[in-house]
Amino acid sequence: MANQRADLSEVFYALADPTRRKIVSVLGRGPETVSALAAPFDMALPSFMKHLSVLERCGVISSRKEGRVRTCELVPKTLSQAEQWMAKQRALWEARTDRMAAFAEQLHQEDISRGKRQR
Amino acid sequence: MANQRADLSEVFYALADPTRRKIVSVLGRGPETVSALAAPFDMALPSFMKHLSVLERCGVISSRKEGRVRTCELVPKTLSQAEQWMAKQRALWEARTDRMAAFAEQLHQEDISRGKRQR
Repeated sequence: MANQRADLSEVFYALADPTRRKIVSVLGRGPETVSALAAPFDMALPSFMKHLSVLERCGVISSRKEGRVRTCELVPKTLSQAEQWMAKQRALWEARTDRMAAFAEQLHQEDISRGKRQR
Repeated sequence: MANQRADLSEVFYALADPTRRKIVSVLGRGPETVSALAAPFDMALPSFMKHLSVLERCGVISSRKEGRVRTCELVPKTLSQAEQWMAKQRALWEARTDRMAAFAEQLHQEDISRGKRQR
């Protein structure tokens, strides 16, 4: 998943839950075992595992198992793809706002020179 | 909504749908009336209005009505708050990766000077 293009619908859906965002925040500080990750949450382990599975399916986190211990870590590239999508929409909007400001300035300058000619 | 802190669960949920992301992309190019927005979508107007309502409720877009015409526009500040949350998690992760690289470099330098002393 880490090298594929993330499915943005799945990534945004995964982040639309406070428990899953909290897991992402914790994993930002480094890899964690599932039991250490689950400890602070007042939640049955199967429910917690479902949240991990949503995050892993869309590539926001990855996990590996050594013996009986499963360790999770963040896949920053996936978050970065979702970030880039949002940044692109804002950039479009800002470019348009800049063009409008430039156009307003042009009208203003034309008004000034027209005023000078008429004096 | 534009001046409040966005509810990230609602914002990410709103963006977890390809139709709603397409609406956001179109509005990045400038405000649009509901009928112009709806035209390219092969969807009944009530379903389309539901998508707009999800986007408006969480502050990703705003709308105003003049006479019978409703116009929508993007609220870039809301997207920016969601972007900042993701950027923060990545920054945490990257800072940790940098600290690990620095630590590995320190061990390496210690190995080198130990090697020199032993020669």
